[in-house]
Amino acid sequence: MQAVCLRRIPRGMPQAQDFKLRQLPLPAVGDGQLRMQVQWLSLDPFLRAQLGGRYAVPRPPLGSIVPGYGIGTVVEDRSGCFAAGDVVSGLTGWAEQAVLDAKVVSRVDTALAPVSTAVGVLGIPGLTAWAGVRRILEPKPGQTILVSTAAGAVGSTVGQLCKAAGCRVIGIAGSARKCAIVVEQYGFDACVNYRDADFPQALRNACPDGVDGYFDNVGGAVLEAALSLLRLHARVVLCGLSDQYNRAERPPGPNLGPVIAARARLEGLVVYDHLADFDRCRGELARMIGDGTLRYHEHIHDGLANAPAGFIGLLNGDNLGKALVRL
Amino acid sequence: MQAVCLRRIPRGMPQAQDFKLRQLPLPAVGDGQLRMQVQWLSLDPFLRAQLGGRYAVPRPPLGSIVPGYGIGTVVEDRSGCFAAGDVVSGLTGWAEQAVLDAKVVSRVDTALAPVSTAVGVLGIPGLTAWAGVRRILEPKPGQTILVSTAAGAVGSTVGQLCKAAGCRVIGIAGSARKCAIVVEQYGFDACVNYRDADFPQALRNACPDGVDGYFDNVGGAVLEAALSLLRLHARVVLCGLSDQYNRAERPPGPNLGPVIAARARLEGLVVYDHLADFDRCRGELARMIGDGTLRYHEHIHDGLANAPAGFIGLLNGDNLGKALVRL
Repeated sequence: MQAVCLRRIPRGMPQAQDFKLRQLPLPAVGDGQLRMQVQWLSLDPFLRAQLGGRYAVPRPPLGSIVPGYGIGTVVEDRSGCFAAGDVVSGLTGWAEQAVLDAKVVSRVDTALAPVSTAVGVLGIPGLTAWAGVRRILEPKPGQTILVSTAAGAVGSTVGQLCKAAGCRVIGIAGSARKCAIVVEQYGFDACVNYRDADFPQALRNACPDGVDGYFDNVGGAVLEAALSLLRLHARVVLCGLSDQYNRAERPPGPNLGPVIAARARLEGLVVYDHLADFDRCRGELARMIGDGTLRYHEHIHDGLANAPAGFIGLLNGDNLGKALVRL
Repeated sequence: MQAVCLRRIPRGMPQAQDFKLRQLPLPAVGDGQLRMQVQWLSLDPFLRAQLGGRYAVPRPPLGSIVPGYGIGTVVEDRSGCFAAGDVVSGLTGWAEQAVLDAKVVSRVDTALAPVSTAVGVLGIPGLTAWAGVRRILEPKPGQTILVSTAAGAVGSTVGQLCKAAGCRVIGIAGSARKCAIVVEQYGFDACVNYRDADFPQALRNACPDGVDGYFDNVGGAVLEAALSLLRLHARVVLCGLSDQYNRAERPPGPNLGPVIAARARLEGLVVYDHLADFDRCRGELARMIGDGTLRYHEHIHDGLANAPAGFIGLLNGDNLGKALVRL
């Protein structure tokens, strides 16, 4: 089978040469395991943190298959839990086939939505958004909620959940085109481009009365600008630090004086703490997709060989919507 | 009457010349007001932030009496609420006498404890500690709690409240002598001097299993070291930024990656939000003083003219215990 392996640890922005497409023998299926034919791979920003040894799970060894979530069809089952043809998702890595323990594989309900959503809006990104909104932001009607990476799989879902809760929602994204999609497709009230020279002022203009909640996937200057807008008792979800994933040194964070002034609450979110809520979350989000109140976009790269380029594009901010590789 | 007035806005560490002892006419007592003869003045770190325009209340105008809490005896009452001889506390400023609206003056219960505690352990510093412990840290038996400015009025009370709650309590203070007092007098399990060259390592050694809660009055490198020790779901009270009160520019804060990793919660505390709990807090703390489970120290400067030197010493870390001026 073909697989993309880690050739060297990226320094700074990952390069195509950090990865290598290899021909590997098919792994054997043991008791309690299944083999799946991978059809979709998820490209996620957290992989960059993981490659830098800064994530909840260990850095993959050199030469190993690049880790990541995938969706595919069971072709052989020795667990007794699945049948050939079942659609499942799990940590397949960037490979054409994967052998996984059946107990760490999830069945994909193909009636809910297109199966690719199992690694997007109905997958870990959706659960991340749901947990941040339901467990930390707890938005109330009339509040103003600010959302970073607003055109991405997590941010777009956060914003739409907050719109559904009756909030004014402002997005932050990395291009004029993304900002247009955030407003026109996802229904945010406004969206500000953090790459514009006047970003802090533009953000203040978009949030003239400050914000009651902020969902941060970025850190750095974007977080600093958001903290300056916190209203009394605001809540901040600290969920990602994409601003620093490509840096060798961890930069300093924002000054926390505004957090005291606002009596705000900042809380770290790791989605894996919320897996017990996955079914409930998936049910809610699928209903919202069904009734048209939750939209999502997919940015599809075709062919396993294009996974590295798709991943690099994701880190560059080139993608619009959930980044996927179709095998 | 004599009063200490603000001669110029301090830049960096305040200097004696920033203040001026002046002879002022006695202010008149209006309807609803009282005049008090000041006996004790409180010296508080937040005054430095206030003089820099970085506090919840506005910067005092040049030439005005330096603001601050005081305790004294009513000498004239036109409110009908107090009688001559009553002991009261309020925002007297650094002056021999003060005229205040009766409704912003508090009666001091002289039976509870020595009256000077009304601006210390039974005053705003005590309420700050109490609110941070009861409303944010919520310490549980067996947890490890870390406390900055551990020899100070707030920190020493925080630590003793957490000891009473059954916690292991580690202090951070600015000299070997303070650390000794923190352990020997206040009963902390250990105390680390943040001015030692090996401070981060010494702190790790004192907290080998990390910390479940941290009370921060400092910011900067002390906060950064504490964040690196957070256990899962740790809570952090952001209460002060003494590390930056004397700086013209606000420095960057610590990297917040450890907050995500620990799923920690950071919350800003402003004591004035908790005034409704003052009676309850005072009752609890007075009982603890009575039964010997809560100790406090006072660092007394004699004479109004010594208020500036006492304040500067406080910012230098020269004081042991609650800094007071006795008139």
